Amino acid sequence: MKNSIGVELPDNLMNQYHYQPFITTKFDYPEISRVAPVVRINTNQSKVVDSLDDLIKENVKDGMTISFHHHLREGDQIFNYVMQAIINLGIKDLTLAPSSLTNVMNEMVIKAIKAGTITNITSSGMRGTLGKAVSRGLLKNPVIFRSHGGRARAIATGKIKIDVAFLGVPNSDEMGNANGMNGEAVFGSMGYALIDARYANRVVLLTDNLVDYPNTPASINQTQVDYVVKVDQVGDPTKIGSGATRFTKDPKELQIAQMINEVIVHSPYFKEGFSFQTGSGGAALAVTRYLRQAMLKRKIKSSFALGGITNSTIELLNEGLVNKIMDVQDFDQIAATSMRDNKNQQEIDASWYADPFNKGAMVTKLDVVILSALQVDTSFNVNVLSGSDGIIRGAIGGHQDAATAKLTIISAPLTRGRIATIVPKMTSITTPGASVDVVVTEYGIAINPQRRDLISYISKIPDIPLYSINELAEKAVDIVGEAQLPEYFNRPVGLVEYRDGTLIDVINQVKI
Amino acid sequence: MKNSIGVELPDNLMNQYHYQPFITTKFDYPEISRVAPVVRINTNQSKVVDSLDDLIKENVKDGMTISFHHHLREGDQIFNYVMQAIINLGIKDLTLAPSSLTNVMNEMVIKAIKAGTITNITSSGMRGTLGKAVSRGLLKNPVIFRSHGGRARAIATGKIKIDVAFLGVPNSDEMGNANGMNGEAVFGSMGYALIDARYANRVVLLTDNLVDYPNTPASINQTQVDYVVKVDQVGDPTKIGSGATRFTKDPKELQIAQMINEVIVHSPYFKEGFSFQTGSGGAALAVTRYLRQAMLKRKIKSSFALGGITNSTIELLNEGLVNKIMDVQDFDQIAATSMRDNKNQQEIDASWYADPFNKGAMVTKLDVVILSALQVDTSFNVNVLSGSDGIIRGAIGGHQDAATAKLTIISAPLTRGRIATIVPKMTSITTPGASVDVVVTEYGIAINPQRRDLISYISKIPDIPLYSINELAEKAVDIVGEAQLPEYFNRPVGLVEYRDGTLIDVINQVKI
Repeated sequence: MKNSIGVELPDNLMNQYHYQPFITTKFDYPEISRVAPVVRINTNQSKVVDSLDDLIKENVKDGMTISFHHHLREGDQIFNYVMQAIINLGIKDLTLAPSSLTNVMNEMVIKAIKAGTITNITSSGMRGTLGKAVSRGLLKNPVIFRSHGGRARAIATGKIKIDVAFLGVPNSDEMGNANGMNGEAVFGSMGYALIDARYANRVVLLTDNLVDYPNTPASINQTQVDYVVKVDQVGDPTKIGSGATRFTKDPKELQIAQMINEVIVHSPYFKEGFSFQTGSGGAALAVTRYLRQAMLKRKIKSSFALGGITNSTIELLNEGLVNKIMDVQDFDQIAATSMRDNKNQQEIDASWYADPFNKGAMVTKLDVVILSALQVDTSFNVNVLSGSDGIIRGAIGGHQDAATAKLTIISAPLTRGRIATIVPKMTSITTPGASVDVVVTEYGIAINPQRRDLISYISKIPDIPLYSINELAEKAVDIVGEAQLPEYFNRPVGLVEYRDGTLIDVINQVKI
Repeated sequence: MKNSIGVELPDNLMNQYHYQPFITTKFDYPEISRVAPVVRINTNQSKVVDSLDDLIKENVKDGMTISFHHHLREGDQIFNYVMQAIINLGIKDLTLAPSSLTNVMNEMVIKAIKAGTITNITSSGMRGTLGKAVSRGLLKNPVIFRSHGGRARAIATGKIKIDVAFLGVPNSDEMGNANGMNGEAVFGSMGYALIDARYANRVVLLTDNLVDYPNTPASINQTQVDYVVKVDQVGDPTKIGSGATRFTKDPKELQIAQMINEVIVHSPYFKEGFSFQTGSGGAALAVTRYLRQAMLKRKIKSSFALGGITNSTIELLNEGLVNKIMDVQDFDQIAATSMRDNKNQQEIDASWYADPFNKGAMVTKLDVVILSALQVDTSFNVNVLSGSDGIIRGAIGGHQDAATAKLTIISAPLTRGRIATIVPKMTSITTPGASVDVVVTEYGIAINPQRRDLISYISKIPDIPLYSINELAEKAVDIVGEAQLPEYFNRPVGLVEYRDGTLIDVINQVKI
């Protein structure tokens, strides 16, 4: 069976996992039934437990699904602590269902896979040693990759049924009222974790900061929490901020950022009340700065900024250039602490942000989004999961979700070192070209032919070369030569879901 | 079959409604499965509709359950508007499941019953002409009375399955992001309505104040809302505040308030960090004032105030005498608008407030509560639903829920006019005596013999006469003579659930 992008999907896999092939980004489902957790009633038993081991023994059984959030990113000190305890207790055959996996978790996940503790994973992505190991076949069953909105959908509809969620928080009271805004390990919005807290059968908070009852504001509240575990340190505050939030000095990135800004400013969407998501990464941050100048010059204000929030978005909010920040995660400490003090910075959960099976997620209202790419193919499909060598080294994040914006701009250098970014065929497909409008490289831009309407606007921009996507791909070949696709075994190690739960691609085990 | 209070429960009724008899206030259930709504997916269709009629025709079918909230109290202009439209469309056999019914809704409910539009009701209570009509047999099926916590439980477990919720809000954007804090019809916390928004299959917001997208803070958010209907006026602001929030000048009430204050101050619970709920009503408000003086004098601060919030609680918060207000509803405009500006005033939903099938509601942490009574019997059971004539004229509210506090004080005049409050046998039972600790009348107080431990504290209070509850009942007889119980037909018109969903009493049709 082939999906609408032309990817061959093995029948046995489709049957085993009950998948439908990806068809369209403009899906139109009538209604769905949500699921709900089993709630253990607490009539005032203490929730604070001393022994994590006892808690795990009582609540985590072979074959269950456990979850974590990744808001603490590379500073996370919860995942390894909990996972080691679970391995030590000899528990087997777990499904690991975190909101995403960061590098700091890699060695422990590998250890847990080798011990038979973890036999299934669903995640937004993975990188480094874990990505390499999984790409080479370490895990028995394929990893299911889901976008942030796709994960919210899968949890809300019961595709992922979390038995126990372990959630690190920078503060909690004895009953489990907690937020991400106060304490040492502040990370701001708990957008992804809120879904786990709402749907998991058991919710365990781990905190280094037990505060007086009742703790407010309570992003997670006591009606959702079974246990509170006191730990020495939830996270290393210096590593909680994403590494990719510094303003770039790379001339190539600055050039791309300037072009992106020109595309936005010349588009019909750049008008009073427009909304945008820039995300993290050097070029994206630079775009925000350029946008600021353009907004001041044109006297235009934005209705809302969405997604992962950085210091540069906070500046726009404080300056009054952005009315509201709709905040599902914060990429730096300034953004994280700002949420506490600014009521125009609204914490939103992953469902509100991006769940496609919903009464309307924020992304459906998004005008402009800038997204990154590991590879872009000549049909405008984008890959953010696997490298040119076929090794998994990325995460879907909100990519598929935010790409549904009215103007989706992919920011991509034409080449990285000796590797082409714009290629005829990618190692995997994350986001369908149907939702991608413009690709911006340092050499020039390509407009998706499906968006003929944009050509008239963008062709007016002085000094920006307009190419077809094939021309950009050829230019890349001119520079670095023909790209070699990696060799694969016929064994799936990753299934890439589109945000509606259809199958968009299968990643096979690499031969290297 | 008799329940543990000795109430005879008709077998056919128990079977028909699948009831268990009330057994204990200290119930201990292991776990429950929650339910979840069916969600109609919205991929960016407009939610703002012009025609309420079309919306009703499309979504409200014969036999469905519809809900409303009562946060707008006697100022509500939504209920009558929607209900009239439903009657006009000839829809039949609906179950009406509002958080409560206020007097302004009475004539329309009677009309809807007579038209066959409403054949079942579940509510916290009812008063006035509706209470009278129902008590006299107007409705085919008995009304099910549930506490605020009991309603949250019933909805979360699927006992009440709301098909369409109609919720009036003082502001909303086009996607349904709304709060109770801004606009003309400000009512503050939307605590009861939040449950409807979370569990109803269809959620309709009605507002007179359509604001820019995205509207924050969003107590109800766009992921929960199907329609937004613009109306001329949601509510009359002058009538939104409960009538019972003025400081009393009645010497009897002041005397009771003073005694209640003495009981609290001499109890072991009046210490640093104690928590309390005073509610509305003249005596309760006076107690808050007296408590303030006692707190200042003893240099004691409260950790939280709970429940329906009044201006006098806000004063304590602003003065720093109360750390947090956990706010499920506001009884006046000052309390309502304060929530917008004070982050220590946390909006909580009815589940967090009082749902007994929960990982811990606020009421389980409550030290002191003052509650009112229409009648108290000599077993300390309390009736807040029916008058001495058997006519339904009250509401359970949070009575059963908050009565689980460590120190539950019932504030009750010994007599009202020529009617005794403390009686051998009441017209109906709302709250079991097992959860009532002290009854305070203007003549003196009675301590529940189950709370022998309190006697040593309270007997130390100078100038406060301590009686047995029988002595108080006899004193009432001395003043107003023997109370006559009304005569009833053998036909149930009301079923009174305890908060855990067991049956505590049956109210029969009166013969007057």
